[in-house]
Amino acid sequence: MSLIVQKYGGTSVGSIEKIRNVAKRVIEYAQQGHRMVVVLSAMAGQTDSLIALAHEVTQDPDLREMDVLLSTGEQVSVALFAITLQSMGYEARSLLGFQVGIYTDHLYGKARIHEIDTHRIIEEIQNDRIVAVAGFQGLDEQNNITTLGRGGSDTTAVALAAALKADVCEIFTDVDGVYTTDPNVCPKAKKMEFISYEEMLEMASMGAKVLEIRAVEFAMKFDVPIHVRTSFGKEQGTMVIGEKKDMEKVLVSGVAYNKNEARITLRRVPDRPGIAALLFGPISEAGIVVDMIIQNTSEDGLTDMTFTVPKPEFHRTMKLVSKVAKEVNAEKVLGDEDIAKVSIVGVGMRTHAGVAQKMFDTLSRENINILMISTSEIKVSCVIEEKYTELAVRVLHKAFGLDQDESGDQ
Amino acid sequence: MSLIVQKYGGTSVGSIEKIRNVAKRVIEYAQQGHRMVVVLSAMAGQTDSLIALAHEVTQDPDLREMDVLLSTGEQVSVALFAITLQSMGYEARSLLGFQVGIYTDHLYGKARIHEIDTHRIIEEIQNDRIVAVAGFQGLDEQNNITTLGRGGSDTTAVALAAALKADVCEIFTDVDGVYTTDPNVCPKAKKMEFISYEEMLEMASMGAKVLEIRAVEFAMKFDVPIHVRTSFGKEQGTMVIGEKKDMEKVLVSGVAYNKNEARITLRRVPDRPGIAALLFGPISEAGIVVDMIIQNTSEDGLTDMTFTVPKPEFHRTMKLVSKVAKEVNAEKVLGDEDIAKVSIVGVGMRTHAGVAQKMFDTLSRENINILMISTSEIKVSCVIEEKYTELAVRVLHKAFGLDQDESGDQ
Repeated sequence: MSLIVQKYGGTSVGSIEKIRNVAKRVIEYAQQGHRMVVVLSAMAGQTDSLIALAHEVTQDPDLREMDVLLSTGEQVSVALFAITLQSMGYEARSLLGFQVGIYTDHLYGKARIHEIDTHRIIEEIQNDRIVAVAGFQGLDEQNNITTLGRGGSDTTAVALAAALKADVCEIFTDVDGVYTTDPNVCPKAKKMEFISYEEMLEMASMGAKVLEIRAVEFAMKFDVPIHVRTSFGKEQGTMVIGEKKDMEKVLVSGVAYNKNEARITLRRVPDRPGIAALLFGPISEAGIVVDMIIQNTSEDGLTDMTFTVPKPEFHRTMKLVSKVAKEVNAEKVLGDEDIAKVSIVGVGMRTHAGVAQKMFDTLSRENINILMISTSEIKVSCVIEEKYTELAVRVLHKAFGLDQDESGDQ
Repeated sequence: MSLIVQKYGGTSVGSIEKIRNVAKRVIEYAQQGHRMVVVLSAMAGQTDSLIALAHEVTQDPDLREMDVLLSTGEQVSVALFAITLQSMGYEARSLLGFQVGIYTDHLYGKARIHEIDTHRIIEEIQNDRIVAVAGFQGLDEQNNITTLGRGGSDTTAVALAAALKADVCEIFTDVDGVYTTDPNVCPKAKKMEFISYEEMLEMASMGAKVLEIRAVEFAMKFDVPIHVRTSFGKEQGTMVIGEKKDMEKVLVSGVAYNKNEARITLRRVPDRPGIAALLFGPISEAGIVVDMIIQNTSEDGLTDMTFTVPKPEFHRTMKLVSKVAKEVNAEKVLGDEDIAKVSIVGVGMRTHAGVAQKMFDTLSRENINILMISTSEIKVSCVIEEKYTELAVRVLHKAFGLDQDESGDQ
């Protein structure tokens, strides 16, 4: 007998009929003797309707009250789910964030979980009840309701699994697992049987569609195995787990891309201490997250600084940077929105040489010019012209032996 | 500067526009320097939609989970209301049952308030915040959400006013006060300036449309003045208060009626100890509330027992009674659904004789036959044929000097 935490998203509980299907699935597990803790999101559309209601009042609603408002969505889901289980003859209890004791900091709308009290859940489980926990919500020190941000139910599920020392945390979603790359771009993409936490984090741009990044960080910290799988069938999905020895045999696990960045370059900036702080200070204060940063080797005491920001922040950033550019007498500021970042990810890179070189060769063979390069222990990213994104993804996917029905040439 | 508790019902907060109107009214009070605690119901229709959703699952949903489900209605209201106040430049905070500390017993769906912790509300008030409290909801000892039953927000408001020692509890509703009788039946009905708690309780059948009975009991127990008034205008409504000396000058304060009862008679029952217990035991066990009970003087060791029950329970009760009738060898069981109860209510009766006699005379003059009579210190009720209800109400209203623009002949 094991303890399983499952999480079902909004589309999986979008109607009474769908809630019934979730209940049937959970009951199958219970009949096999598993103890079940089920985390639910708000019914699909619910959260958006509540946001629309608040926006009827003001475009800038108070964050504390938004959390009070939005947390009703999950409350409705878990109550209906418990009612459904009971109508099918199974003992069930819903628990809200404050009832479990999911304690967070006080950052409304994007709170982080500090601590989980497992006392009540364990009591309910020991009374042979299926426990339905409202995802996405917690309580701060002053007894205020907080929410964990979009995708927060994933984090709730993983955090609960960690606190309860559950055997596995199953995340049911509308895709059937994590793929070596986006199947819409590359039809030969394969579903992965396993992926390590770190790889999953590095695949963020693709992975985020499947699993909330913070949930992965949480799982990695507490070593909670996550099983990402479809709620529409019974097949196995992808296990997101700690790194295993034989994972390193595979050089590259996946190819990710991100079309949502823009590039900004300061030409011929004086290369002296404090310049980077001067440049990135105002950007960071404006709440803009910079991704890649590259500084070329200095020449004549002058250097070029290039970095990328999310595309929606491009114009705001250009304004801030132009101001700094004048102050430091930079030659000029260049901006480019038509770029994409293509990355290869794999823990195997740590122990293999020549991976980056193979990526450059592969792109070069297709005449794709590389505009920026950045590397980490388990990732190589290249910024290229946006129009080449799909081509780059496909040729890299093939070059690193990821295409379906290929054994790979590594 | 005073502390005022206000309660607004579902129709008063039925849309964002209506919530804005409530906010404007509350702000007027705040600008006059009053400290405001505002209790809200769910937006009109919300509770019914949630019930319908649960009934899509089962006609017999678990009561604990229904309370989790239904309490979201008030949660949405208070969040939107606080957002609205803030958008108008006023500091505001919503508080749910669990956050205030409204502690109840564990009778889901009809919980009773045991205790209220005023600590958090007072803290918010002292920070110059308008406090919006979700009505209708509380928390039991095990941290489960409970609800107080239909109209429970009235009880929340009165209980808060009592706990906070508020100067007044204002109940805003869609009628403009308590009337001497139903204006739909008797166009000459007058709005009362004052009514005592006890009279209000005795006027239940009419009063319940205006103010939840349990709220009145609570107010009486803690001597909280209630001001029942319209949310659509500024005029004064009716003050529900403790009995005042000059209230006794008025013989009859109001005329109430109730068409929702049915009458059952056991003919010729052996008049011996234990018969009543034998008869009413099974009825009470079935959760049926008996209203009037009359036992005639015994004759030949046999007696007639007559009583009334709510009309929807008539057939169930007839079945139970027929069974008992056989056991005790009663001659037969008679039932009548076409009856109504008409009552005159007034604290003045205590000190005046002949009030009942005047009622009988008045009905008799219209050839209205009296089927049952029951009296209390401040009420006389007669059961009559249902078809005479409106006529009886009008002639009694006139006879006791309640008609508008009449000084009364008392």
